[in-house]
Amino acid sequence: MTGSLTIVGLGPGAADQVTGAASQALAVATDIVGYGPYVDRVPERAGQQRHRTDNREEIDRARHALEMAAEGRHVAVVSSGDPGVFAMAAAVFEAVETGEAAWRALDISVVPGISAMFAAASRLGAPLGHDFCAISLSDNLKPWDLVLKRLRAAAEGDFVIALYNAASKARPRHLGEALELLRGIKGPDVPVIFATAISRADEAIEITTLGEADAARADMRTLVMIGSSATRLVARPGARPFVYTPRRVDGQVP
Amino acid sequence: MTGSLTIVGLGPGAADQVTGAASQALAVATDIVGYGPYVDRVPERAGQQRHRTDNREEIDRARHALEMAAEGRHVAVVSSGDPGVFAMAAAVFEAVETGEAAWRALDISVVPGISAMFAAASRLGAPLGHDFCAISLSDNLKPWDLVLKRLRAAAEGDFVIALYNAASKARPRHLGEALELLRGIKGPDVPVIFATAISRADEAIEITTLGEADAARADMRTLVMIGSSATRLVARPGARPFVYTPRRVDGQVP
Repeated sequence: MTGSLTIVGLGPGAADQVTGAASQALAVATDIVGYGPYVDRVPERAGQQRHRTDNREEIDRARHALEMAAEGRHVAVVSSGDPGVFAMAAAVFEAVETGEAAWRALDISVVPGISAMFAAASRLGAPLGHDFCAISLSDNLKPWDLVLKRLRAAAEGDFVIALYNAASKARPRHLGEALELLRGIKGPDVPVIFATAISRADEAIEITTLGEADAARADMRTLVMIGSSATRLVARPGARPFVYTPRRVDGQVP
Repeated sequence: MTGSLTIVGLGPGAADQVTGAASQALAVATDIVGYGPYVDRVPERAGQQRHRTDNREEIDRARHALEMAAEGRHVAVVSSGDPGVFAMAAAVFEAVETGEAAWRALDISVVPGISAMFAAASRLGAPLGHDFCAISLSDNLKPWDLVLKRLRAAAEGDFVIALYNAASKARPRHLGEALELLRGIKGPDVPVIFATAISRADEAIEITTLGEADAARADMRTLVMIGSSATRLVARPGARPFVYTPRRVDGQVP
């Protein structure tokens, strides 16, 4: 009996932001594994087993999924957004590398999804229209000094910056410290966006500047985006402005 | 008569990598606008007009789409991958900002898609599993010195780097120069991936190192990815290794 493991990206939340390949992978799975609220997004199907886990147990969850695949089950591990972006795919391959030799011969695949920063960008205009970085502010698995070093490099390179895991109760001061560091390099006028629960019923978008940005506006569902020196707002009658970063950069290197 | 303009991401190429929202936007459009090979990916529909343009005419194409929307048409502008990543969305908002005032009141929206780097990452494992940057190597619209500055910042920040527009006949030496700069900072052992025509029939993936990477292996359809110091290969029996970047970074800042 040959099993399989597919790591599936569910996109930002709305059902219509899922790809055909992701829907197909979910439909043929015998087992759905993931953080509870993500498993709940998968349409129910008779005979399919659901394994809901806590958010912090990524490596155990990955090992459990690999064990089931090794037993011949067809396992779908689900992630919000894209599974390769601060999500389950890296945990699964880490479990493969450090686990049983037989796991390397399993049929393992990844189905990409719409990551939070692209969902957020699509609701704003085109803020990621030029060179950009994605940085996780979580220091659960990396030193905070490395986060600061990357923020500095990203600011000095004048990238647009998307911050994942921007806020959590366990790290109340990190986002404020990150914004302060960026303000010191980029100045106060650069656009900042707090994009919360994008594509869901309680979606909220706030457009501000580095000088005005208040870290307390972010919660666990917030993607924070900081513009480059070129990122612009286009005013609209009776609506939120568009935010975009032009393709063209004229003149000298800043 | 109220028109609309939707900028739609078609994903990397395969039909099953398109979201439901993108398919729906294409189904209701009266006009499809885009670079010819991308328009050709859209399923034919009776009564729908197709406007195939050359690759270099992005801003004219955006203005044409806005004019049609202002006349009451329902226009879908199509991009490969995600329209907000080095693609049509920024061109449309640039045309809105610099064009007729009435265009700002139009119903304009963006439907995200699977960008090339996520499609490539999904075929490899999880190379983007940690902090990463996306940089376009094209100097059509920005100074080459700015590209070099950003490459340097990305390397010094030890990001995984995805290079878009890595190769073109007009810029035969750029990729080689970029790889040389990165080699000088990251060293020769970091994994490099050439991912060409991902999800299409002629998909090709080459895994090498910065020391061995040959810029001539990239063509216009190639996404080039350069690992961080932590990016790893996991050998497999009878198959290409998995490539992933662990979530965990131990010890000191490099």
